[in-house]
Amino acid sequence: MKKNALYAQSGGVTAVINATAGALILEAKRSKKIGKVFAAKNGILGALREDLIDTSKESISALRSLSYRPGGVFGSCRYKLKDIDSNLKEYTRLIEVFKAHNIGYFFYNGGNDSADTAFKVSQISQKLDYPIQCIAIPKTVDNDLALTDCCPGFGSAAKYIATSTLEASLDVASMSETSTKVFILEVMGRHAGWMAASSALARKGKSDAPHIILLPEVVFDQKEFLSSVKKIVNKNGYCVIVVSEGVKNKKGHFLSESTNKDAFGHAQLGGVAPFIAELINTKLKLKNHWAVSDYLQRSARHIASKTDLEHAEAVGSSAVKFALKGMNGVMPIIVRSKGPKYKWSIEPAPLSKIANLEKKLPKSFIAKNKMDITQKAIDYLMPLIQGESNPPYKNGIPYIHDFKLSMVKKSLPSWK
Amino acid sequence: MKKNALYAQSGGVTAVINATAGALILEAKRSKKIGKVFAAKNGILGALREDLIDTSKESISALRSLSYRPGGVFGSCRYKLKDIDSNLKEYTRLIEVFKAHNIGYFFYNGGNDSADTAFKVSQISQKLDYPIQCIAIPKTVDNDLALTDCCPGFGSAAKYIATSTLEASLDVASMSETSTKVFILEVMGRHAGWMAASSALARKGKSDAPHIILLPEVVFDQKEFLSSVKKIVNKNGYCVIVVSEGVKNKKGHFLSESTNKDAFGHAQLGGVAPFIAELINTKLKLKNHWAVSDYLQRSARHIASKTDLEHAEAVGSSAVKFALKGMNGVMPIIVRSKGPKYKWSIEPAPLSKIANLEKKLPKSFIAKNKMDITQKAIDYLMPLIQGESNPPYKNGIPYIHDFKLSMVKKSLPSWK
Repeated sequence: MKKNALYAQSGGVTAVINATAGALILEAKRSKKIGKVFAAKNGILGALREDLIDTSKESISALRSLSYRPGGVFGSCRYKLKDIDSNLKEYTRLIEVFKAHNIGYFFYNGGNDSADTAFKVSQISQKLDYPIQCIAIPKTVDNDLALTDCCPGFGSAAKYIATSTLEASLDVASMSETSTKVFILEVMGRHAGWMAASSALARKGKSDAPHIILLPEVVFDQKEFLSSVKKIVNKNGYCVIVVSEGVKNKKGHFLSESTNKDAFGHAQLGGVAPFIAELINTKLKLKNHWAVSDYLQRSARHIASKTDLEHAEAVGSSAVKFALKGMNGVMPIIVRSKGPKYKWSIEPAPLSKIANLEKKLPKSFIAKNKMDITQKAIDYLMPLIQGESNPPYKNGIPYIHDFKLSMVKKSLPSWK
Repeated sequence: MKKNALYAQSGGVTAVINATAGALILEAKRSKKIGKVFAAKNGILGALREDLIDTSKESISALRSLSYRPGGVFGSCRYKLKDIDSNLKEYTRLIEVFKAHNIGYFFYNGGNDSADTAFKVSQISQKLDYPIQCIAIPKTVDNDLALTDCCPGFGSAAKYIATSTLEASLDVASMSETSTKVFILEVMGRHAGWMAASSALARKGKSDAPHIILLPEVVFDQKEFLSSVKKIVNKNGYCVIVVSEGVKNKKGHFLSESTNKDAFGHAQLGGVAPFIAELINTKLKLKNHWAVSDYLQRSARHIASKTDLEHAEAVGSSAVKFALKGMNGVMPIIVRSKGPKYKWSIEPAPLSKIANLEKKLPKSFIAKNKMDITQKAIDYLMPLIQGESNPPYKNGIPYIHDFKLSMVKKSLPSWK
């Protein structure tokens, strides 16, 4: 009897994580070697709760529409499994669920934490003697996974950021003489500056926006920063700043925390743009505007990168191929070929070398003035935003297909 | 000798104001009845300073590319002319510039204030005996001009807002069980809620996002609002709120002002999302995220509405046609035909009936619960976001054509 597969999404979703899911499910179907693909409702929690969605009930057109659908259609969650040794209960429960539904393949689609969880699940075979093959599939707008050249989801967020920076800068430029002189765009990236860096792709000429990029890898130097803004406004007439939510001051505190403490009560990230705006108000007295993209940047499927979409689909179908080759505890990663033309392939990499690591911007990618990136960084980033893949539209907005999301009948006692 | 024309942009730019400029210049060329079209650099200030751009130096492909270019290519400004009687100096200067460059047609592309300025300029012929035909051309993302059915620029902003609301809501929905429960999107609209209202176009089903729309036409009722958020989260698992920057409390103060007073020093609008977030943090203790679109929403040419683009081009070419018919002091407005199918035409309307008026959401467009819009509003809005018109891309971002922006030789003493 063919083994079934379980697919789960983990952590923050992206514009193309569903594309990975769709490619995986369709590849499993094509292979004829896998029974059903179940999707865990709301990530690993659904696996523990036996909340399984039967994807075989969805039409082929619904499955294909996953390539166009942002968010996580089966739901995701933030939930990290502990070690097998310290929390055996969760693993034995997983095995019960796997057994009850004849699951032989577990595909876990997420970032650093998820690679860690997947690595632990991959050890079940050895440590708990249940035959499961576990493949982690990369996904994160943060682009901070080790080994893989880039992470599916990032390229589309990068394209959104570059395009938004370009468009807003044309707006600011037209009005700067009598109105706004400084525009600040806050982007995601708590520890790694990949998203902020991608705004540099908006430039055609040297004096084009963005003029300043504030990265979380660089300690914020208020004096240098303000002096740069002033110089740029004097020279250009306006200044466009892209700032990562994770920028910290010398004391190691997030800039957003320091403002938000009084006004907003708690230290949720996502307020560094108003902090920078306030600084420019009080110290330079320059009229400014600010935008915070927040979820818009990671869900903007309407402006997805075709290259990113292809990566997302390739890691999904490769996960199935690797599983069918008998692999366990690996991740299909994107490998960039050397040479002037952008070429890539998918190869398996061991989860032990990926779990819990965080890939920040290398020093060679950060400009000497610490407020920009180097040509080397641009050469790395540029291929990742290439190509457009427009979703179908209906009634003026992207068309979102209906899903049955039919739940599998439970056979186990409820969990916890 | 053929008269030349002067075109100027005014106030905040949009994703399609350049499309109006392009259509106007190309129509003037086609007519063979107008000499050159000069564009004032940075709006009416350029006209006063004799800073004129000779658009005849631009290639046809550059002029055609205006249909794809956000921002204002010739520059815009916020500058309102006073009455002829109280500030004759500015008008006599305008006449000097018109005379020096044989200008017989003045096209002024803007919102309420610009319609007022254009109306005053249109009176020059009568009051100061200089033969000038002045046509105001509508433009504003605020959609608040009187008489015209809608304003070019609005449909594209509306499409951006509806699409962003849809995409972000799919993101929030996937994570809501263990993460963010409330998402807040702040949109523009200081006095009129057209942009916030357009987020309702993101819905397919009744329980779809946005769940709450806060309009500037409605006084903010904190108790009702918080009770609604709570109910919606309990029922749906998450709640998406779209809030207009111009929402005010019972005392008539902008909500954004009340927060920003301490933290940001001055009363610049654009901080109502963090205010709402803080309210939800402290009163409901629900995890939330917020986004502020700011300039992104009015410059997002990459997701322009094709209908809006067609409106923008039609008002540009009609302005030339009306001028050549001898009209003065009019605006080409968009007139919607009655009947179930959306049809529209362009007709001239007198500036005296447009200048300084502000069209807010009518009562029949606001839902009974005051936190949503009616079906009548949706029926009005829906046609305006229909159709896609993708810009050409190069290197992964929208391609921006180079312009010569060749300045006309000055022949007058400098102004002021």
